Amino acid sequence: MSSDSKPIHLYTLATPNGVAVSAYLEELKKKYPGFDYDFTKIDISKNTQKEDWFIKLNPNGRIPVIVDKSRGDFAVFETSAILLYLAQHYDKEYAFWFNPEKDANNYSEMLQWLFFAHGGLGPMQGQNHHFNKYAPEKIPYAQKRYLDETKRLYGVLDIRLNGREYLAGDGKGKYSLADLKAFPWVKAHQHAGIETLDEFPNVKAWLERCVAREASVTGADVGGFGK
Amino acid sequence: MSSDSKPIHLYTLATPNGVAVSAYLEELKKKYPGFDYDFTKIDISKNTQKEDWFIKLNPNGRIPVIVDKSRGDFAVFETSAILLYLAQHYDKEYAFWFNPEKDANNYSEMLQWLFFAHGGLGPMQGQNHHFNKYAPEKIPYAQKRYLDETKRLYGVLDIRLNGREYLAGDGKGKYSLADLKAFPWVKAHQHAGIETLDEFPNVKAWLERCVAREASVTGADVGGFGK
Repeated sequence: MSSDSKPIHLYTLATPNGVAVSAYLEELKKKYPGFDYDFTKIDISKNTQKEDWFIKLNPNGRIPVIVDKSRGDFAVFETSAILLYLAQHYDKEYAFWFNPEKDANNYSEMLQWLFFAHGGLGPMQGQNHHFNKYAPEKIPYAQKRYLDETKRLYGVLDIRLNGREYLAGDGKGKYSLADLKAFPWVKAHQHAGIETLDEFPNVKAWLERCVAREASVTGADVGGFGK
Repeated sequence: MSSDSKPIHLYTLATPNGVAVSAYLEELKKKYPGFDYDFTKIDISKNTQKEDWFIKLNPNGRIPVIVDKSRGDFAVFETSAILLYLAQHYDKEYAFWFNPEKDANNYSEMLQWLFFAHGGLGPMQGQNHHFNKYAPEKIPYAQKRYLDETKRLYGVLDIRLNGREYLAGDGKGKYSLADLKAFPWVKAHQHAGIETLDEFPNVKAWLERCVAREASVTGADVGGFGK
């Protein structure tokens, strides 16, 4: 099959974590002409991600996962670990990250915001989605806890983005892995019971910048519910 | 002050995330004779971590944070970003991590388990602590949700640790940042309503290995409640 020549195979669904990776893959395709990838949509409503073949790729049974066919079928799970893997092996010009040796402080700041999004924004907004949208019981204490925490975290982003365009980088910053991991969560703010971002003007402007990118548009379609 | 000569200043409290960093700092002190650090205990019961001076170091208002006095007072927040920063700048022999260039696959596997602990184990066990221990209301749905999820995540670790001593590295593995981030959470399993680790024999043996290290013992005291 022609797809065998594409180095990366992505297993995904168009959730915030899925889109973080597909948007980056689309950026890499645009930036580096030889780069390409294929994908398989994983139907989490059928628990495909809990089947044996998938658990071999990711024992945690979660999307997204990549397999690198050009490097001995090496498998990578955890959204942010995938972003850093793709950066190291396929973003040699540091278009979307920072040289750890030559630009060590920006590299660290990118990691700090990447981990903030990975351990704070994602998990807490995810709990917010659960209690405010999906849980079989309405539990006001939990609904408030996670709505408040999501807003608090948006407020932290708003402080960071004051006078900046992106989360890491000199001056107004550079679009990087930190933005790629964070923006798909903020894009889903209405699922989290936050109707508008008017309270968070810096976040609102940043989100508009992130989603306007061509790769964000095409990436958001990968593993989409209609595909 | 003599303390000015120590490169790293740690702001911490002996929580699982605090201990992840202090245990690593203690490992570095043992391994590299010139290396040392000071620390300030942060009293979260007084909300010290929400004061202006602290928010300048970490806009998220959370411990741990480090300030590197030997590199222009550069501040780093987010536990795992601190671990990676210390590794890059102070663990030049790769004693507790893997060379990203020469040992790329082990480096990626370490990151995968680091992010698993940072985005899964930590946040979900933290919610478990909240609902099973601290919340003013007893909410059976939330208590069960987070106890079940914590156990599921321990089960994932148990699969990974089958036949291994540590989470990343060739053969049986090497003690690395992934273990340092994860073990203080698992050590707190009784706070999470998990009385014994007998269901998770590989996790139980791994935890015993991690906590038996001299640096884990001295590190667990840093920012302790009696200090």
